[in-house]
Amino acid sequence: MQLTADWVVGFVDGEGCFHVGLVEHPNMSTGYQVLPEFTVVQHERDIQVLYALKRFFGFGVVRKNHADRYAYRVRKLKHLEQLCEFFLKHPLKTRKNVDFRKFRRVVLMMKEGRHLTREGLAEIIDLASSMNTGDRPRLEAIKAQLAAG
Amino acid sequence: MQLTADWVVGFVDGEGCFHVGLVEHPNMSTGYQVLPEFTVVQHERDIQVLYALKRFFGFGVVRKNHADRYAYRVRKLKHLEQLCEFFLKHPLKTRKNVDFRKFRRVVLMMKEGRHLTREGLAEIIDLASSMNTGDRPRLEAIKAQLAAG
Repeated sequence: MQLTADWVVGFVDGEGCFHVGLVEHPNMSTGYQVLPEFTVVQHERDIQVLYALKRFFGFGVVRKNHADRYAYRVRKLKHLEQLCEFFLKHPLKTRKNVDFRKFRRVVLMMKEGRHLTREGLAEIIDLASSMNTGDRPRLEAIKAQLAAG
Repeated sequence: MQLTADWVVGFVDGEGCFHVGLVEHPNMSTGYQVLPEFTVVQHERDIQVLYALKRFFGFGVVRKNHADRYAYRVRKLKHLEQLCEFFLKHPLKTRKNVDFRKFRRVVLMMKEGRHLTREGLAEIIDLASSMNTGDRPRLEAIKAQLAAG
């Protein structure tokens, strides 16, 4: 299956997810690890589309997600940088582009090591909180803890 | 917002829905009306993408779906024929293409008036039942009724 850039943009506009996770990590200077992640989840009947995305980008993995669903997933920072280059050159057409721009900002900050400082992490938490609305209460609690600590 | 054919295929692979409805209709020779319908549903924040699809195809309507969601919808047979021409020329890459091919078969049968015969309707019900798995029990009951009637 051969994919074109435009098809990939259209499909990601529908099915892609940009997410910034935050995990407690005692060895990190701030106490937290920032985990930006791009995923496309599909029913197992469309697993060949996930492998086609992996071939298209030349990075990422295909993994079982939950039940009968599989995910194409990119987590490595250098690959996320390449992914961001792609979506900067080929912009998403839905509001997902707003999330993408915040996501890209997090990736660029991490490239500069700013997630390792308390100020940088606070800014990342604000960005993540405005993207992953489901995580907002938890992220705001972490930010408050960070400011107090 | 300018769309390309490949973006539209990618987006419909993710978000499009081919559906064949069956509605009781006493004035129809078979007692039922066949209602094939193509829809793309989005949150209202992405309503401009639905209008871009309408401009791209040159037919269809944008309507409120439910709550904060809107749908781009194509129902007219001559427009569904044009839509089918498009997706025949630009094939979907997911398994949605299997549904599309069944949907196209229903549209072509309707063009030939075969949905007005009991045999044609029975064939359409089989196709619809294999696509809209949620409607299957109801569709099978109608088919049994039709065979008995």
